[in-house]
Amino acid sequence: MEIVELDLGEASYPVYIMAGAMAQTDLFARHIRGRQVMIVTNETLAPLYLEKMKANLRDYQTDAVILPDGEAYKTLETMNLVITALLEKGHNRSTTLIALGGGVVGDMTGFAAACFQRGVDFIQVPTTLLAQVDSSVGGKTAVNHALGKNMIGAFHQPQAVIIDPETLLTLPPRELAAGMAEVIKHGALADDEYFSWLEHEIVDLMTPDLRKMAYAIKRSCEIKAEIVARDEKEAGERALLNLGHTFGHAIETGLGYGEWLHGEAVGAGMVMAGALSHRLGMLSEEELRRLKTLIVAARLPVDAPESLRNEFLTLMYRDKKVTDGGLRLVLLERLGKAVLRDNVSDEDVLAVIRAG
Amino acid sequence: MEIVELDLGEASYPVYIMAGAMAQTDLFARHIRGRQVMIVTNETLAPLYLEKMKANLRDYQTDAVILPDGEAYKTLETMNLVITALLEKGHNRSTTLIALGGGVVGDMTGFAAACFQRGVDFIQVPTTLLAQVDSSVGGKTAVNHALGKNMIGAFHQPQAVIIDPETLLTLPPRELAAGMAEVIKHGALADDEYFSWLEHEIVDLMTPDLRKMAYAIKRSCEIKAEIVARDEKEAGERALLNLGHTFGHAIETGLGYGEWLHGEAVGAGMVMAGALSHRLGMLSEEELRRLKTLIVAARLPVDAPESLRNEFLTLMYRDKKVTDGGLRLVLLERLGKAVLRDNVSDEDVLAVIRAG
Repeated sequence: MEIVELDLGEASYPVYIMAGAMAQTDLFARHIRGRQVMIVTNETLAPLYLEKMKANLRDYQTDAVILPDGEAYKTLETMNLVITALLEKGHNRSTTLIALGGGVVGDMTGFAAACFQRGVDFIQVPTTLLAQVDSSVGGKTAVNHALGKNMIGAFHQPQAVIIDPETLLTLPPRELAAGMAEVIKHGALADDEYFSWLEHEIVDLMTPDLRKMAYAIKRSCEIKAEIVARDEKEAGERALLNLGHTFGHAIETGLGYGEWLHGEAVGAGMVMAGALSHRLGMLSEEELRRLKTLIVAARLPVDAPESLRNEFLTLMYRDKKVTDGGLRLVLLERLGKAVLRDNVSDEDVLAVIRAG
Repeated sequence: MEIVELDLGEASYPVYIMAGAMAQTDLFARHIRGRQVMIVTNETLAPLYLEKMKANLRDYQTDAVILPDGEAYKTLETMNLVITALLEKGHNRSTTLIALGGGVVGDMTGFAAACFQRGVDFIQVPTTLLAQVDSSVGGKTAVNHALGKNMIGAFHQPQAVIIDPETLLTLPPRELAAGMAEVIKHGALADDEYFSWLEHEIVDLMTPDLRKMAYAIKRSCEIKAEIVARDEKEAGERALLNLGHTFGHAIETGLGYGEWLHGEAVGAGMVMAGALSHRLGMLSEEELRRLKTLIVAARLPVDAPESLRNEFLTLMYRDKKVTDGGLRLVLLERLGKAVLRDNVSDEDVLAVIRAG
């Protein structure tokens, strides 16, 4: 078993990575304080994993709530279904929520845990690659609003993250690719050696080769954990993890949530961030080509939809990473080193959008 | 001007109490970081104070959202109206929300500030006595759920609390009385001298005499601030501030929110907590009589509605102060000293409910 520690003082917690982890009752018991557990999952995953998970937890009052599947349901209304289930089943402040699913389930369960009675415990059991390498680690929770993604949320750290790479065997290929976008992001923003390793292993990773994938999950969690430990509330450095996200969110908002997968939008968004970095004299042409090639190899889009071209800048300005002065973007100085830039000119951004 | 400091390390903030405070532009300027302000108020208060408040803030992008009035609207849906207004007006992470209103506006604005983009600043400008002496101080924010009061919320401290006692001149008498319940609570749970002072001044306070009222607000804020500073997240001592609240919430939930005012329910709830304390050999008969007399003098109910008698215990068990073992209640050892008791027997509670 691999363990990555997220060092956040009193709120520190472990990320366990192990094939078969989902069946390890003691891993769960270690992190459940009370006698009540609420498993939150969705209608796609429930038939695959819910009974297995309940069997693990038969020493507790174990209830479950099954949500509709998809980013379109990552809303306050759906989050409220979790609260309703907790109240109907008489759960109290010492309950533990278990997020059994991908990023949508994790974000929504985490937010429900953050809000229910002003905060209860939760454990992340991410079942998609995207959630395993990114959204389940770091304590960002949120739901979407019709006018913007992740606009309503909280910082709320889980008690533990329990990752079972075997869940990737049932993951649709398109979702595997979407998760790979965040893996590539971690290499691109923080570790050029890891980026090179990914270039070398991308075909096996996409199979997926679970042994190699476990390494990628571990390395991605480490990179994320280091950054989050230094800047939990995103006062500065943590924003680097948003590489490709301001462009990506514009795509998701413009098309309507769920049209493109989040990771697909981040894939195209990273290429746009790379192109802008190159235009501003940072990333070399060769590096931009390598970035684009790896993203293509991960079967991800590299261009934003043409239909959004005219409104793209407006959509970007709606993103929450905008501060009083103008666009704040994560750019690449080189592969393995991201930087935060304030007040990037509209002209430069438009040039990249038009070239798209 | 009186200033009570809430000592919470980095999240510390001042509570200003001054007749005319609402017109002191510099008090606001001191606590607004960015260039954007969103005033959140309701349809009853907007005609009285909104223009005045906007005039104070003409150096900022000042927007306003006007919510329906009443506890029945303290819901996720109404909170979402605040988020919608923020997004429609292009507010970003450096915005400041201003809660201009009573407890409902304050709780909901605070929760919106806690959630919007995972947390932005807010300032409390409480206009009811209840909000001035209790809900605006201490960082508890929440909305109600159909199955329970304050079930969805967050701990989120304001940047400042600005209290203008002159707002009490336009407050309906029933709401003044409701606020007085929390004032009496502070005396009863923490300070017998203050309790005696209240017994002596209750007639003038109900007029309201603004000079004496300013003292009561200050003393109540001090008592609350001391307790919150020692236990921000309600791990222990802060629960003492819930004196009368488990009984009171049962009344509010049983009748439907808004039927009784929160303070009215707390008034009757304190008498029930007092009667239970007496039954368990703590509060003396004479002290129980004094408590009841002061609550009557504040024009508050001292009995729960008879119609709820049969379901009362069930309603209490739904309250969030219940832990795994049974009812946890705040009781009075004597006037001026509250204690937290776990596992109070159903039999004793039922005896008090039946005697009601």
